[in-house]
Amino acid sequence: MAHLAALPRNESGIATALDVLRQRLGLRLETGQALREQHGHTTTWLVNQPPDAVVFAQSTAEVQDIVRICADHQVPIIPFGAGTSLEGHVNAPAGGISIDFSQMNKILAVHPEDMDAVIQPGVTRKALNVHLRDTGLFFPVDPGADASLGGMAATNASGTNAVRYGTMKDNILSLTAVLPSGELVKTAARARKTSAGYDLTRLIVGSEGTLGLITELTLRLRGIPEAVSAATCSFPSVQAACDAVIAVIQYGLPVARIELLDALSVRAVNAYSGLSLPLSPLLLLEFHGSPGGVAEQAAVFGDIAAEFGATGYAATTREEERNRLWQARHDAYWAGLALRPGAKGISTDVCVPVSRLADCVTQAQAKAAEMGFMAPVVGHVGDGNFHVLLLIDMADAAEVARAEAFVGWLNDLAIAMDGTCTGEHGIGQGKSAYLGRELGPGALTMMAAIKRGVDPLNIFNPGKMALPNG
Amino acid sequence: MAHLAALPRNESGIATALDVLRQRLGLRLETGQALREQHGHTTTWLVNQPPDAVVFAQSTAEVQDIVRICADHQVPIIPFGAGTSLEGHVNAPAGGISIDFSQMNKILAVHPEDMDAVIQPGVTRKALNVHLRDTGLFFPVDPGADASLGGMAATNASGTNAVRYGTMKDNILSLTAVLPSGELVKTAARARKTSAGYDLTRLIVGSEGTLGLITELTLRLRGIPEAVSAATCSFPSVQAACDAVIAVIQYGLPVARIELLDALSVRAVNAYSGLSLPLSPLLLLEFHGSPGGVAEQAAVFGDIAAEFGATGYAATTREEERNRLWQARHDAYWAGLALRPGAKGISTDVCVPVSRLADCVTQAQAKAAEMGFMAPVVGHVGDGNFHVLLLIDMADAAEVARAEAFVGWLNDLAIAMDGTCTGEHGIGQGKSAYLGRELGPGALTMMAAIKRGVDPLNIFNPGKMALPNG
Repeated sequence: MAHLAALPRNESGIATALDVLRQRLGLRLETGQALREQHGHTTTWLVNQPPDAVVFAQSTAEVQDIVRICADHQVPIIPFGAGTSLEGHVNAPAGGISIDFSQMNKILAVHPEDMDAVIQPGVTRKALNVHLRDTGLFFPVDPGADASLGGMAATNASGTNAVRYGTMKDNILSLTAVLPSGELVKTAARARKTSAGYDLTRLIVGSEGTLGLITELTLRLRGIPEAVSAATCSFPSVQAACDAVIAVIQYGLPVARIELLDALSVRAVNAYSGLSLPLSPLLLLEFHGSPGGVAEQAAVFGDIAAEFGATGYAATTREEERNRLWQARHDAYWAGLALRPGAKGISTDVCVPVSRLADCVTQAQAKAAEMGFMAPVVGHVGDGNFHVLLLIDMADAAEVARAEAFVGWLNDLAIAMDGTCTGEHGIGQGKSAYLGRELGPGALTMMAAIKRGVDPLNIFNPGKMALPNG
Repeated sequence: MAHLAALPRNESGIATALDVLRQRLGLRLETGQALREQHGHTTTWLVNQPPDAVVFAQSTAEVQDIVRICADHQVPIIPFGAGTSLEGHVNAPAGGISIDFSQMNKILAVHPEDMDAVIQPGVTRKALNVHLRDTGLFFPVDPGADASLGGMAATNASGTNAVRYGTMKDNILSLTAVLPSGELVKTAARARKTSAGYDLTRLIVGSEGTLGLITELTLRLRGIPEAVSAATCSFPSVQAACDAVIAVIQYGLPVARIELLDALSVRAVNAYSGLSLPLSPLLLLEFHGSPGGVAEQAAVFGDIAAEFGATGYAATTREEERNRLWQARHDAYWAGLALRPGAKGISTDVCVPVSRLADCVTQAQAKAAEMGFMAPVVGHVGDGNFHVLLLIDMADAAEVARAEAFVGWLNDLAIAMDGTCTGEHGIGQGKSAYLGRELGPGALTMMAAIKRGVDPLNIFNPGKMALPNG
């Protein structure tokens, strides 16, 4: 998996397109090696496949121009946001032009009465929320990285509070995108609901740059909750913690976040942050609502947790105390990495029906131990999504190969449980082999038919998502 | 609009396919005129365009067989659920075979721990909820009719509690469908979240039978709330009522339902049901949650409503009282029809950003009055979606023409307000002319490209949704 075959390159088309683009863009067409490698290289463990050039796009019209030029010469185009994708989405296996959207980062409109905002794709999620602070509104989707919202849309990102507020798919009302023909598509009106034609919004969201280049997004916003309460407690086993999660969801408790740290993750954060949490699975919750509402929810959770053998229950609405309770979660990634200094952290991303979650996590822990991996687990358990962080010495080819074997084994286990190999990271290059195993040949046929219909020259992000390369 | 041109018929292909299907299905291929007309005729005001034959499908494999036979002879196929669509979705403008899914009505599995159910498309929403009652779970999407869930998926239906629980799009985890090639597609795993490839689920949902014939649905279920509270009050104007709605949503009150009746609707229900509500706009709300939670929410709503001049505020958690408070809403459709006995009720379906709602409703009322229509208004106002019920004498061609003019004027008004011509009914035949006006040429190009890629012979429900007929 770490080593990928390059695809055939259209050398003469690329050379001609570069000439035409250089005349058009001058020094804004950048071809320095470091910049090109930075635009192929991401946080992934996959091999770097740099584009031939990078353009920092300034406007929708300019993106249309670039696309038309590349289409004329059948040259690949790869959109680039913040470069935080995990599955090789921005690699250029057939070369081509990387369009970097980071300078298209304007917030075009905020409509407080409609609770939406219109933005350019280069705006990051943190920048948006800083901008919104005075309006009493926020955008809820929170992947780990401060990703660009265009990139988050392209991979259908989510994060810790999807259990309450949904994924990118649930929080984009409309978008505009440039098609492979250079034509502009507006997918929907700004209304809250629509039954007007094919849902192009949600087709382009999660399509990983293979159907359209997003140049504008209309995002649904939420009210900053009046009160926030946090609660944590330890469980005797992953099974007990997961059973408590199921009970919480069935009860209808409107949790905003419900996160799991396994015992190894707890050991890691104890060491990293000087905490002394019991070395057993930990659940961390957050409730959003009125002061009375969140107090009631935290109390109900305490009762449910106790039924499943929880200990060390703590809950608070005070911000400082909340941050202290959640410190273990905030530090989990870096604490995990610190378990093995110098190692690279490789994250799996399976998501299973919540009834299968305990079984899936427990089997993953046992397999990782059996294979000799240091592999802490954190999970967005309300959705059945968890990440095993494999700590790998990338210089050890045998170890990398074993890690690939583990990832494949876990993907297949999740698929066998009627789950998915990717809850929120996407397919990209890294999971191409698993899409057909997960959904069967009909889905691949239909995806390929859509791709052929929309991008007959296959110039938009070729070599991704198990789509045909021909 | 009421009169539609027929499309060219493939007479020899239809004749041959009927022969082959008759050999395969015997008496189960029905060609009686009344049945055929019933399968073209729906609750729409559009002209009846019956199919050449009707098949009551028994299984997914049988649907695949029928599709393959029709594909071999390039014969149209039109899926039929309960026949409650409003925009001519089941008409057969080029003839062909209507596949009736009403006998594929099994509930295949209920997974209480995962809060989902796997069903066949002919199950109606009421039948599903009766089946679920003992589990403590329910399926929330509630269009007016007791529609089939397959049909609700095909049109992306919603209803009164979409403001809390979303539309069909938000409540379908996965589906299986037969493609125009006869191949079966499974769109997603049963996990709560996925980023695995194109979102075929939401592409097929709302595609009105033009891309795939749905043969199985995995639905997300919700917990029946512990407590339910209802509240109503009257407002001095539509503007005041809509301002209260905006305030409620901005406050973050998790209303389960928030419905508007305009003064004419109130007059109609007073007459129909012997009530004596003030003849001014009425809001009706429902809250779902814990006993303490719903009491708090109803009280907060009372305070907000008072700020906008509300009178006659009443709230209760007792079921009998709730039904009494909501009687006006439950009776609104029939009460509206009773305003003009013998008239046909034609419903518009625009949806606008909620900040434009008061303006849109007020202009619609004024225009209807100016054009001499009796036209009560009800609205799912939390989403900005409302229905004007035009009461029309279908025997009066001039009046029908004026009604068409009103519908077109209102669709264009909503589009000018960055809204949609259809919040929940779909495009079908009736709104074909408005899709391009709403979204522009790029969206039509992309929809046509998808359609051509997936259904190159154009045999799935041709002549709908502004897709090319060639």
